[in-house]
Amino acid sequence: MASPNRNPQIRKDTVSNRWVLFSPARARRPSDLKSKSHPNSNNQSECPFCVGHEHECAPEIFRVPPDSGSDWKVRVIQNLYPALCRDLELPSLPHISDPNLNYGDVALSGFGFHDVVIESPVHQVHLSNLSPIEVGEVLLAYKKRIEQLQRHDSIKYVQVFKNYGASAGASMSHSHSQIMALPVIPPTVSTRINSMKEYFDQTGKCSLCEIQRDDLLVDESTHFISIVPFAATFPFETWIIPRYHSAHFHELDGEKAVDLGGILKLMLRKMCLQLNDPPFNFMIHTSPLEVSPLQLPYAHWFLQIVPQLTEVGGFERGTGCYINPVFPEDAAKVLREVKIL
Amino acid sequence: MASPNRNPQIRKDTVSNRWVLFSPARARRPSDLKSKSHPNSNNQSECPFCVGHEHECAPEIFRVPPDSGSDWKVRVIQNLYPALCRDLELPSLPHISDPNLNYGDVALSGFGFHDVVIESPVHQVHLSNLSPIEVGEVLLAYKKRIEQLQRHDSIKYVQVFKNYGASAGASMSHSHSQIMALPVIPPTVSTRINSMKEYFDQTGKCSLCEIQRDDLLVDESTHFISIVPFAATFPFETWIIPRYHSAHFHELDGEKAVDLGGILKLMLRKMCLQLNDPPFNFMIHTSPLEVSPLQLPYAHWFLQIVPQLTEVGGFERGTGCYINPVFPEDAAKVLREVKIL
Ligand SMILES: Nc1ncnc2c1ncn2[C@@H]1O[C@H](COP(=O)(O)OP(=O)(O)O[C@H]2O[C@H](CO)[C@@H](O)[C@H](O)[C@H]2O)[C@@H](O)[C@H]1O
Ligand SMILES: Nc1ncnc2c1ncn2[C@@H]1O[C@H](COP(=O)(O)OP(=O)(O)O[C@H]2O[C@H](CO)[C@@H](O)[C@H](O)[C@H]2O)[C@@H](O)[C@H]1O
Repeated sequence: MASPNRNPQIRKDTVSNRWVLFSPARARRPSDLKSKSHPNSNNQSECPFCVGHEHECAPEIFRVPPDSGSDWKVRVIQNLYPALCRDLELPSLPHISDPNLNYGDVALSGFGFHDVVIESPVHQVHLSNLSPIEVGEVLLAYKKRIEQLQRHDSIKYVQVFKNYGASAGASMSHSHSQIMALPVIPPTVSTRINSMKEYFDQTGKCSLCEIQRDDLLVDESTHFISIVPFAATFPFETWIIPRYHSAHFHELDGEKAVDLGGILKLMLRKMCLQLNDPPFNFMIHTSPLEVSPLQLPYAHWFLQIVPQLTEVGGFERGTGCYINPVFPEDAAKVLREVKIL
Repeated sequence: MASPNRNPQIRKDTVSNRWVLFSPARARRPSDLKSKSHPNSNNQSECPFCVGHEHECAPEIFRVPPDSGSDWKVRVIQNLYPALCRDLELPSLPHISDPNLNYGDVALSGFGFHDVVIESPVHQVHLSNLSPIEVGEVLLAYKKRIEQLQRHDSIKYVQVFKNYGASAGASMSHSHSQIMALPVIPPTVSTRINSMKEYFDQTGKCSLCEIQRDDLLVDESTHFISIVPFAATFPFETWIIPRYHSAHFHELDGEKAVDLGGILKLMLRKMCLQLNDPPFNFMIHTSPLEVSPLQLPYAHWFLQIVPQLTEVGGFERGTGCYINPVFPEDAAKVLREVKIL
């Protein structure tokens, strides 16, 4: 599926500002791109995310539809093992006062929110099995929760993400995603916003509105396109980008949510069929909750889907550069041509 | 082994400039820190890295000792599936001229070197089974190869790394490491050097010479210390840091190589015993080949060892922030107290 005769290339992603090495020759290594099977199915009878087991979960934040009782379709709950604590004092002091700290060591208290979104009441149903309208309801649950989190002044950024399959990090097999609200703007987010600013300063345009490479296009819907980015970090990585300019995911309305639900479902089904149901992550890359009017013309959210087909090794950990054995044009062509019946 | 009652903390690593979330509560999730078994043992009779199979490998660069015939102890060879090509034209043109490229898309030709270091002629022998002198010989092979690569003007940075175990990326089980010579300085390296500069500008001292936290110390030798860094990205991550100030790994001499061999062997054996022979990576973080005299006072190389005990999920991929369930002080204490017989 790669083009073994092309020379390797190093490319720089203008969004993440990261170098990526493209090397079709690597595709011939003695190891397969199709993913291994991923045996993380916790026993259904013991799954706390299943309908009827609500009492085994950490407290609920809301369900969809509201007041639906045991007829819920989506539940947003607290994470029982949160990485951040909603009960800590606000991080008013930037440094925890510890006489042992060396100069330069910075430590904040771990204030923040860590929630789980249960995407279906039924254990066997995956996100890609839902209808576009139902996927849209999950997306609108993200939106609603972000709008709640936004009311906390000390929350600067909200990361929505999904882990599917053990080697993509999932510890629960029941279909779910996660929402983390952070008191800091993560470095990748600042870097991304700064890269987009640089593009804007030089061209007067938004870098994501401008993407126009037919060979990288996978699919289009009324309000979105899906592409393989020019300098994709991972093989068969795809981005779903709104065609309308928008800084924040949570500006999504009901109609656009269904449209996004449809194209997200399509991409997940294509990946599943073509790449043998691989483990994957998706991440919503939005803007910090507070953006200045000056940033609005170039801040543009998107959703990134990363199937996990290769392992990260010492080179990537050491350099932050990634080795991708599949050229984006080739990956886009393959995904474009998958027939969904 | 973690302290479940401590509050989570967010820390910033002054070297990589990266935020890390420390969350002991995460250690109680329904999943174990001890690593899974890693079944990647390619069949020994077919292993091209074994003595007697030299003809099945890509061309040799040198062996140790030189002219040792079939009595070699270490071989440095070309990678048969290189991510970078030594035969490409130098990347004199920064942009590949492609009328399809959008503004801002940067593409260099993939010039560079990608070598493999075979650490032992014998399939079953791992790096930690070698004597300190023998590990020292592997380290001196890295040094010799870096000195050769340095002669190419267009090579800016050399990354030495090791993958052990399938889920740390290894595709070959015979003990080996890799050396990649790059025509660009990777972003993590610039970030690291800039962070060290900032520390130096504010204190007049080298940040790594200054590390003085007894609770983070694991072991010491004549010329090196091993510590768990204050804001370790991964559980049980350790750094081996020269006690002498030195910008470049390849300044290592024979005596220091044996000393480093000893402490590296010790750390790997401790990790193997305490964490159940986990997959791991190690990376040598050195300085760009060319450093200005102004940078010398704060540039200080070190070796980072990362056992692979958790999977990276969507949160890490999305934000570049990592979640580490084990406080560095706790990890250091555990590793300090492992008894090696
Ligand atoms: N009864 C219950 N009630 C409420 N919540 C419950 C619960 N039982 C379990 N949970 C929570 O449900 C979540 C399930 O999340 P995932 O399966 O996506 O991965 P997890 O967060 O475990 O770790 C992966 O994702 C994170 C973030 O990317 C990585 O740090 C990590 O290494 C990777 O394995 C867990 O966070 C868990 O704490
Ligand atoms: N006969 C032969 N002669 C010479 N060389 C031979 C050979 N047979 C195999 N090789 C090479 O030997 C190397 C063995 O390396 P590793 O096992 O450390 O991991 P690999 O590089 O495959 O990928 C891991 O490390 C890289 C870099 O971190 C990640 O990109 C990747 O995803 C991860 O799986 C391979 O690079 C392979 O090309």
